[in-house]
Amino acid sequence: MEGPLEQPVERLADLGEWELLRRLARYAPPGQFDDDAALIADGQDAAQGGIAGRRPADLVVNTDVLVEGIHFSDATMGPEDLGWRASAANLSDLAAMGCSEVVGLTVGLVAPARTPWPWVAGVYDGLRQSLDHYGGTLLGGDCSGGGQRLLAVTALGRLGRGPIRRRDGRTGDWLVSTGPHGLSRLGLALLLGELDPVAAGLEADLCRRAITAHQRPRPRFDAVAGLEASQPAGSPWRVGGTDSSDGLAAAVVAIARASGCRARLERRSLPLIPGLAALASGEAWCLGGGEDFELVLALAPDWAEALLAALPGSQRIGALVAEPAAAGEAWLAWADSDDPLPEGIAGFCHFQL
Amino acid sequence: MEGPLEQPVERLADLGEWELLRRLARYAPPGQFDDDAALIADGQDAAQGGIAGRRPADLVVNTDVLVEGIHFSDATMGPEDLGWRASAANLSDLAAMGCSEVVGLTVGLVAPARTPWPWVAGVYDGLRQSLDHYGGTLLGGDCSGGGQRLLAVTALGRLGRGPIRRRDGRTGDWLVSTGPHGLSRLGLALLLGELDPVAAGLEADLCRRAITAHQRPRPRFDAVAGLEASQPAGSPWRVGGTDSSDGLAAAVVAIARASGCRARLERRSLPLIPGLAALASGEAWCLGGGEDFELVLALAPDWAEALLAALPGSQRIGALVAEPAAAGEAWLAWADSDDPLPEGIAGFCHFQL
Repeated sequence: MEGPLEQPVERLADLGEWELLRRLARYAPPGQFDDDAALIADGQDAAQGGIAGRRPADLVVNTDVLVEGIHFSDATMGPEDLGWRASAANLSDLAAMGCSEVVGLTVGLVAPARTPWPWVAGVYDGLRQSLDHYGGTLLGGDCSGGGQRLLAVTALGRLGRGPIRRRDGRTGDWLVSTGPHGLSRLGLALLLGELDPVAAGLEADLCRRAITAHQRPRPRFDAVAGLEASQPAGSPWRVGGTDSSDGLAAAVVAIARASGCRARLERRSLPLIPGLAALASGEAWCLGGGEDFELVLALAPDWAEALLAALPGSQRIGALVAEPAAAGEAWLAWADSDDPLPEGIAGFCHFQL
Repeated sequence: MEGPLEQPVERLADLGEWELLRRLARYAPPGQFDDDAALIADGQDAAQGGIAGRRPADLVVNTDVLVEGIHFSDATMGPEDLGWRASAANLSDLAAMGCSEVVGLTVGLVAPARTPWPWVAGVYDGLRQSLDHYGGTLLGGDCSGGGQRLLAVTALGRLGRGPIRRRDGRTGDWLVSTGPHGLSRLGLALLLGELDPVAAGLEADLCRRAITAHQRPRPRFDAVAGLEASQPAGSPWRVGGTDSSDGLAAAVVAIARASGCRARLERRSLPLIPGLAALASGEAWCLGGGEDFELVLALAPDWAEALLAALPGSQRIGALVAEPAAAGEAWLAWADSDDPLPEGIAGFCHFQL
């Protein structure tokens, strides 16, 4: 054993968010922290419970924390947008787990005593707009003073036909994105004034769409419904996937690692919209911008083809291949380019402030 | 309509915690915020689901936020105690709602990047000790940097035989406390050095018990089991109640208001332990110290008598009487004293910093 003088104490900034989550996962049952949200078995024997042909609905729970100055600021969104976004980001994790129904939210609100009531009312208006749209109710919550505004939101939902899990990809699966990526990051750049839309030649309509994507993201429950509707007859339910809240590349890497495969992305098929493709940072924002809240799925080719036909805006972006990575090898590479992937696309790390 | 110059903006400090919660409750379905935790119906027809004779287990959810400097500090507890306490305070709300089983917790952790990893590990050790003791697992969570250490804990449990609700008291019910009150406040006073135990003539054993009560509170699932075991044959399930986390008097007032009754407390029967009764502040701490996490129940006299016989440490503290309060009348008064109740016992208000 070394004394404190020999071994300085590790701090959260030294670990980073992913290593911290890895360590915290040790306090939970094996596999519990592997996915976007946690599945809670009903507690009854599925064979005995339930209405004819319907098993007891499994519940899914997810908690997200949004901290002022890290996840939101007055510069990028007003209180109603924040409320919508806090709810939608959380509901996206339910969709990414395969939920077809929202039960509701609990909300822990922390705010300094000087916070104006209309700001809080705006946040709850936005939360309710989201629940009115996607279903579910405000179930409960807690509030407290504190030095910094913060929302801790827990969402509860019911699983649809089956779970979507990161580990359920297989070699040969197609990788499918349910929509474009990079739009939310463009919206953030516009809101922060990082980019002059006129100098960049961006059309007003694209700018509006980008800002809406950032302020009012949409959890893709419609994609879960499309997935269920397009399941080929006779195929078992097996869907690898996650949402792209931490970035498209991070989502693909998460699926590949959990599934013991490598991912090949087709550079010519990146889910970029035309206006974004013209920007110098377009590809990097598509891969690593984050917060697009689309679903990224690994599906057997026949199911993938059926989904692409059924869900407008979805597209094939690559495939899972064998060759488990040796030490130091990348989980993710281009299928159709020898270029290295851009740096810094592995997702957010909220402790590296 | 008046302009902003005529009507200054309301701030949370002007509202206080209870008024804030009252306003936030408008965003939820009627009655949803009335109790310690939220009941989630199973979503199936109870008559059709479930194993013979057992209805589908209703889920209960509760979220609490603990903020450094308000709910905890390094002066009063180490990280393991904090983890235990964050879990136990939340589980107490499940017990107060009538849960007989803990499903688990999600934990939102916010901490500055400079926070030592061993502090976080200690918090999670304490959380796990509590789950090992009361059942359930760590289901998931989120973590983020932030200016202030903070835990947002959501607990999920399954209802036992029936719900315990604040509004289910009736005129003629006995008020029962499942254990002593004021001990946690004494522990806090000792930890903060507000009180010299030698000068106050406190025995060492009482001081140890008080500090343990503050640092390692126990949710009273055993009292829920006692309540179920003592239900008189043929009596319907009707249990008014809440936990005393905000203080004994606040719990009694909450039951009385929600049930449309007045409460009469017997001053000679206050659940004070002898060493505490000798202190000048003993009675005020018993009534308003808070954080004792006992259950305070309103029960028909025959059920109350059976519970008192079955549950060591429980005692009758008063009764609910008719006479709904007119405007300005107190919900709570002594049954056996003309003295007014001590001031400032209505519970905590975490926005009045």
